[in-house]
Amino acid sequence: MRLHHVGIAVADLDPAIELYTTVFGAELTHRTTSEKEGLEAAFLQVGPAELELLAPLRDDSPVGKFVAKRGPGLHHVAYGVSDVKKALAEAHAAGLELIDAEPRMGMHGTLIAFVHPKSVGGVLTEFVEV
Amino acid sequence: MRLHHVGIAVADLDPAIELYTTVFGAELTHRTTSEKEGLEAAFLQVGPAELELLAPLRDDSPVGKFVAKRGPGLHHVAYGVSDVKKALAEAHAAGLELIDAEPRMGMHGTLIAFVHPKSVGGVLTEFVEV
Repeated sequence: MRLHHVGIAVADLDPAIELYTTVFGAELTHRTTSEKEGLEAAFLQVGPAELELLAPLRDDSPVGKFVAKRGPGLHHVAYGVSDVKKALAEAHAAGLELIDAEPRMGMHGTLIAFVHPKSVGGVLTEFVEV
Repeated sequence: MRLHHVGIAVADLDPAIELYTTVFGAELTHRTTSEKEGLEAAFLQVGPAELELLAPLRDDSPVGKFVAKRGPGLHHVAYGVSDVKKALAEAHAAGLELIDAEPRMGMHGTLIAFVHPKSVGGVLTEFVEV
């Protein structure tokens, strides 16, 4: 496993992209919108890992609720794995509570799944198939 | 700049190390205690980047206050740079508020400095000299 990306909830996507590309040397690789999840995401490369900036499209989306409750800031950590289904099975066997019992298609265009933060010391944790 | 590590506040260090080394394939590289900062830290390699697990030694330490207020979870993001003093000057010139006006020695044994989360969309942000 490797640290694949850090998800960051932001209020507005454009100024956040501007900040990370100018001050922190990040390179914007792509942007995408998910109407289903109610968010717009920007992916930025920073050396060997990525930042995933997440801006809510609606206040009642998961990211909208996160920002309303906690404010913008660190949202999740994702680990790249060769087989998300296997990683999920191992996490479940270790007693972790899964948000996604089965892998689903993520915005990177590969399979993803989330583990509940209460099983990972308060950290919302994602597996990404790489 | 590259994503150097993700800092995670934990209530207890040993079970957190156990979780990350068994379920997430992290490798413990070292542990250290800072009486001054009131914390014990464990550094774990996960592919090209690190996790820095931070456990408070005292409730009134910065990490102790963080855990009391927000609970354990994601704490900060650190970027590796060749010159922390220069990175700080550039961040200051871009209008960011610095926590450390000058670099100081960090627990990795290299110079570090923090930028205030209110300047980085709620994300406590660190530069680490590499």
